[in-house]
Amino acid sequence: MGANELLAELAAVGRNPGGGYTRLAWDGATMTLREWFVGAAAGLGLEVSEDGNGNQVAWWGAGLPGNRALLLGSHLDSVPDGGPLDGPLGVASALAALAELKASGWAPSRPIAVANFSDEEGGRFGVACLGSRLATGAITPDAALSLRDDDGTSLGEVMAARGRDPRAAGVASWLDDVEYYVELHVEQGRWLAPNDAAVGVASAIWPHGRYRFDFCGQGNHAGATAMADRHDPMLAYAATVLAARELATGARATFGRVRVGPGSTNSIPSRVTAWLDARADAEPALEALVAGITARAQWAAAEDGTTVTVKAESTTGAVEFDHALRHRIAGLLDAPVLPTGAGHDAGILAAKLPTAMLFVRNPTGVSHAPEESAEPADIDAGVAALTDVIRELG
Amino acid sequence: MGANELLAELAAVGRNPGGGYTRLAWDGATMTLREWFVGAAAGLGLEVSEDGNGNQVAWWGAGLPGNRALLLGSHLDSVPDGGPLDGPLGVASALAALAELKASGWAPSRPIAVANFSDEEGGRFGVACLGSRLATGAITPDAALSLRDDDGTSLGEVMAARGRDPRAAGVASWLDDVEYYVELHVEQGRWLAPNDAAVGVASAIWPHGRYRFDFCGQGNHAGATAMADRHDPMLAYAATVLAARELATGARATFGRVRVGPGSTNSIPSRVTAWLDARADAEPALEALVAGITARAQWAAAEDGTTVTVKAESTTGAVEFDHALRHRIAGLLDAPVLPTGAGHDAGILAAKLPTAMLFVRNPTGVSHAPEESAEPADIDAGVAALTDVIRELG
Repeated sequence: MGANELLAELAAVGRNPGGGYTRLAWDGATMTLREWFVGAAAGLGLEVSEDGNGNQVAWWGAGLPGNRALLLGSHLDSVPDGGPLDGPLGVASALAALAELKASGWAPSRPIAVANFSDEEGGRFGVACLGSRLATGAITPDAALSLRDDDGTSLGEVMAARGRDPRAAGVASWLDDVEYYVELHVEQGRWLAPNDAAVGVASAIWPHGRYRFDFCGQGNHAGATAMADRHDPMLAYAATVLAARELATGARATFGRVRVGPGSTNSIPSRVTAWLDARADAEPALEALVAGITARAQWAAAEDGTTVTVKAESTTGAVEFDHALRHRIAGLLDAPVLPTGAGHDAGILAAKLPTAMLFVRNPTGVSHAPEESAEPADIDAGVAALTDVIRELG
Repeated sequence: MGANELLAELAAVGRNPGGGYTRLAWDGATMTLREWFVGAAAGLGLEVSEDGNGNQVAWWGAGLPGNRALLLGSHLDSVPDGGPLDGPLGVASALAALAELKASGWAPSRPIAVANFSDEEGGRFGVACLGSRLATGAITPDAALSLRDDDGTSLGEVMAARGRDPRAAGVASWLDDVEYYVELHVEQGRWLAPNDAAVGVASAIWPHGRYRFDFCGQGNHAGATAMADRHDPMLAYAATVLAARELATGARATFGRVRVGPGSTNSIPSRVTAWLDARADAEPALEALVAGITARAQWAAAEDGTTVTVKAESTTGAVEFDHALRHRIAGLLDAPVLPTGAGHDAGILAAKLPTAMLFVRNPTGVSHAPEESAEPADIDAGVAALTDVIRELG
């Protein structure tokens, strides 16, 4: 079964009326996708295991002695109202490539594995790549399990409710048996289309972070309080949004999530909490960007007699993918090499082992939105490229 | 029992951990308050009826022939995380005044009634003064009953679930038997304290409205989308907040409620919906303010290749309280006369019958927030003033 057909099997899972997908960690949709993964892997004769972090791994030739494994895969969760491909394309392409290789009679010289990493998007608990961060030790189990979703339920409680033992979370020994990780992903942004290439190879991931801004003022009556007597935290928030846009030259700064308290039309807010997603091509540039936005936020807040505090909820340094591996793959595929502003499990695993990424052309560049797409022929080209990589490395 | 003691009985109902109150129409807290109202009225020997809109009315001397009634009262609901007095002070003061008059042996020459108007704040269904608007015909039952709360439940469904027949909603005949309405309310804003008065009389309510702004753009990946390629509706929202602040000279403009879709930290929003509360001292000034903010919103949206649509969800014209009645009361009490930017059921009833309002000094001016307060002695002064008014009019 090809990757397009595998993706078609997922078309109804977690789909919103507007055509987007909401598949958040451990919700009903991702539980259905976990079951689908087990079934699809079993159909290919792969053995599926799950580590203490919820990462599922399907193994081909787990018993092959001598060589450490080639790991493929991606994730099956999404951002709220995201697209169909960010994550599932990498899992479906890996399974399709193994199906093709098995059918061709090719035999691997090392174990080949396909991962479905848990909670890559961080759409529920606020920190991205929780499954790979836990498995590699990039976050401690205590820190991860105590993260809470918008309903106040912790990751530990959610995992326990899904029959998982939170005490098993943490560094995963199966990663010690992995030699390489290659993740295929739909392109995010638009570089391959104007450069007339169906598939590209990643050079690097920009450093990025998520920062919580708490603007605090004095709640009051929207009709009876003169403008001059107000301490409205919404004003400093608005100024900070515009400052972020202005300061993000050659970088990225986004406010996509906001909570207003009490959130009433006829009340001046007492607090506005907003999350900044910031990225730049190098760590000093990212630090300067966030410092600049913070300074402008503080200046704006002081103007209104309000306050703002800023807390980094997660930060990830620059990832430069293994040079030898990326040159080997780019040469093998005759594919262009490009950087990305998006984070991935591959960026987390790159700190531990040689890691590479393939991108499949996205004609509009849109991602994290219902319009995210790739041509079926380009998806097939991605599977063909991944198949070549497996033959080369496996 | 005095008004301070009656208010103390309500101190725990709908109280939030931070000390504020959330008592939204037909929620558990307001149902408890409805029961309390029936009990408190019965304790004074008053007969309680409820009209088809959920307005409760406690009657003293309902059978007195000849003269039409003097109506007192206010409401018991609150904004989300509001204060203890906006609403309950008017109900408690009216009950306390009747208790005092009954104890003194005074006999009314006309029926005296105390109302608890339903859903004054509009905190659940978005339109303020629903109970009084329905009772006076200022809103049709169809329009009101189809309003939906944030969970998507309509007012009609909510009333039915509370055992009320939505078909009974609409113009209330009991109002035909009312001659005057006098509402006592905690001051909102701060005028009485610097003018050294415990009690004031309202001259007018500014015209005001609630306007829904829908900013629409293109959802996308927060890391992979270059700033120049974005159509981020948050930017026009931010510019509109600052434009509203700048344009509201001698007026009031507030954005206190915002919804962001999809609302994910690592996604550029596809839409931002925000509600503007706007008020001015005259209708042309209000129209000019809203037109100016709308123009600035449209200009900002066009800059980013996004769009904005603006819809008036509710508007209320200027209310000039009955001149003869307000002069009579101000003279009786030797109290100052002041306007207000806040809406009230009294503003709705003023279109139908002579109506007046008394304000009790608010030392900080803060309202619609947990810090809303009045000194116990000022509350007693308010009850004394209301008692004088009842003796005069009743």
